Amino acid sequence: MKFISFLFGGVARWGAVRDDGAVVDLTGAGFGVTLREAIAAGRLGAATLAAEAGEALCQFGDVTLDSPLPDTGRILAVGANYSDHAAEMNRDVGGDPQFFIRVPSSVVPHGAPILKPRVSDHLDYEGELAIVIGKGGRHIAEEDAMDHVAGYTIFNDGTVRDYQQVSLPVGKNFDASGSIGPWFVPATDISYPLTLETRVNGEVRQHNNTDNFTFGPARLIEYASRFVALEPGDIIASGTPAGVGAKRKPPLWLKAGDVLEIEIAQIGTLRNEIVNEPA
Amino acid sequence: MKFISFLFGGVARWGAVRDDGAVVDLTGAGFGVTLREAIAAGRLGAATLAAEAGEALCQFGDVTLDSPLPDTGRILAVGANYSDHAAEMNRDVGGDPQFFIRVPSSVVPHGAPILKPRVSDHLDYEGELAIVIGKGGRHIAEEDAMDHVAGYTIFNDGTVRDYQQVSLPVGKNFDASGSIGPWFVPATDISYPLTLETRVNGEVRQHNNTDNFTFGPARLIEYASRFVALEPGDIIASGTPAGVGAKRKPPLWLKAGDVLEIEIAQIGTLRNEIVNEPA
Repeated sequence: MKFISFLFGGVARWGAVRDDGAVVDLTGAGFGVTLREAIAAGRLGAATLAAEAGEALCQFGDVTLDSPLPDTGRILAVGANYSDHAAEMNRDVGGDPQFFIRVPSSVVPHGAPILKPRVSDHLDYEGELAIVIGKGGRHIAEEDAMDHVAGYTIFNDGTVRDYQQVSLPVGKNFDASGSIGPWFVPATDISYPLTLETRVNGEVRQHNNTDNFTFGPARLIEYASRFVALEPGDIIASGTPAGVGAKRKPPLWLKAGDVLEIEIAQIGTLRNEIVNEPA
Repeated sequence: MKFISFLFGGVARWGAVRDDGAVVDLTGAGFGVTLREAIAAGRLGAATLAAEAGEALCQFGDVTLDSPLPDTGRILAVGANYSDHAAEMNRDVGGDPQFFIRVPSSVVPHGAPILKPRVSDHLDYEGELAIVIGKGGRHIAEEDAMDHVAGYTIFNDGTVRDYQQVSLPVGKNFDASGSIGPWFVPATDISYPLTLETRVNGEVRQHNNTDNFTFGPARLIEYASRFVALEPGDIIASGTPAGVGAKRKPPLWLKAGDVLEIEIAQIGTLRNEIVNEPA
């Protein structure tokens, strides 16, 4: 089942999108006021049954999507987690995943514009699988880690490369430079490996699969839980494969009017258009 | 005037501490439900008058302090912003400030325990001036930037050095590794330069003043506003001077029972004890 957070009739809601395109509102159904709350309560199975049996609120095209987890404050992202991307960036990965933080303001939902900053022409995409934590915990053992995954969504770890050169966290935190969505899919609906493809204006730029992770999801969760007590709804952006625009010859930067699509098998396609930051 | 956020009678409130130690509750006084809201509304002057004239709720010793801005999600921190610290860390600062992000869970209030992580014995302090944004904005000119400062508090940019070696953001984001407070002081009560002193168990470890900033507050705000639209209550931790434990010979790491104090003239003293992360 695909779960979304959305606006309809001016009200923030969450619910499910069925295969027939019907949206079922689950906001008032006793599972939680937000999708994150339903995840925290472990109610996704019951919510799926309710979505299958429920009446349609509207069709998918009628809603304004929000990020799947708008009430989540923590986005833990991993750099250089596919060896081909680490190589193209000349980065020595070492023995541990290299996490950094994205603030929520740096990410927009599916369908919302990604902003090319006024101060840079070096906006780049990074297609990634986002892991959503279900059961929290600190010092989670790698062999137990997959029990802590609620599900998945798609992430664009959009990066402003010239500012990244000054300071990686700055290049990763420009307002509306990344994106997430369109929906959240429970872990029970997903089996590894997952194929990931990034397209710009329909042209394939990244194509890889999660068998080529340097550090798999379980190891990422183990390592993240060393420094934070993970909480339901925390998002781990798992890193991007080779093919970023910065390393094409000549480099190909995102510009206004470009359409970015990141497709992950068994999940869907995250789609955003690039627009110039307003003057 | 010193403004605090606190718990009293089991209820989250904000208010002021007068010089006589009296706490005046401003939560229900029409300025905002939180201190951040009062800052956003530009009501600090009126809140000061109300605090001077108001009846005491209790004495300062009776409250449990929270972080001054508990409803603020963004902490933008700057690395290597005093040349003596940049030199001791062998860091080439370059022409721009080097920002990174701290998640709120990495910081505790004045008086709450700082946790020495189970996975590391290399916990270090970094005493810093924290700048609190009053008026938001994007692309703020350096000459206008000080108009966007609401006031100040004290920050311990606590760092787990061995994890910082793997990835700077990880070393800066361990749960309860940093601290903030005890209170917020409006910019109208502060004049530069400010002297900063860090003590561990009463012994002076850092002593410097803001005249030695590489990048002053106005330049930090200008640069931060290139990548985010600053909002009221955003916190900029302005960097630490030389004297960190990692660079003493031999290194001196924080351990359970140590008492960390960071004193900034015209503001006050942020005090925390170190305890071991629970097993």
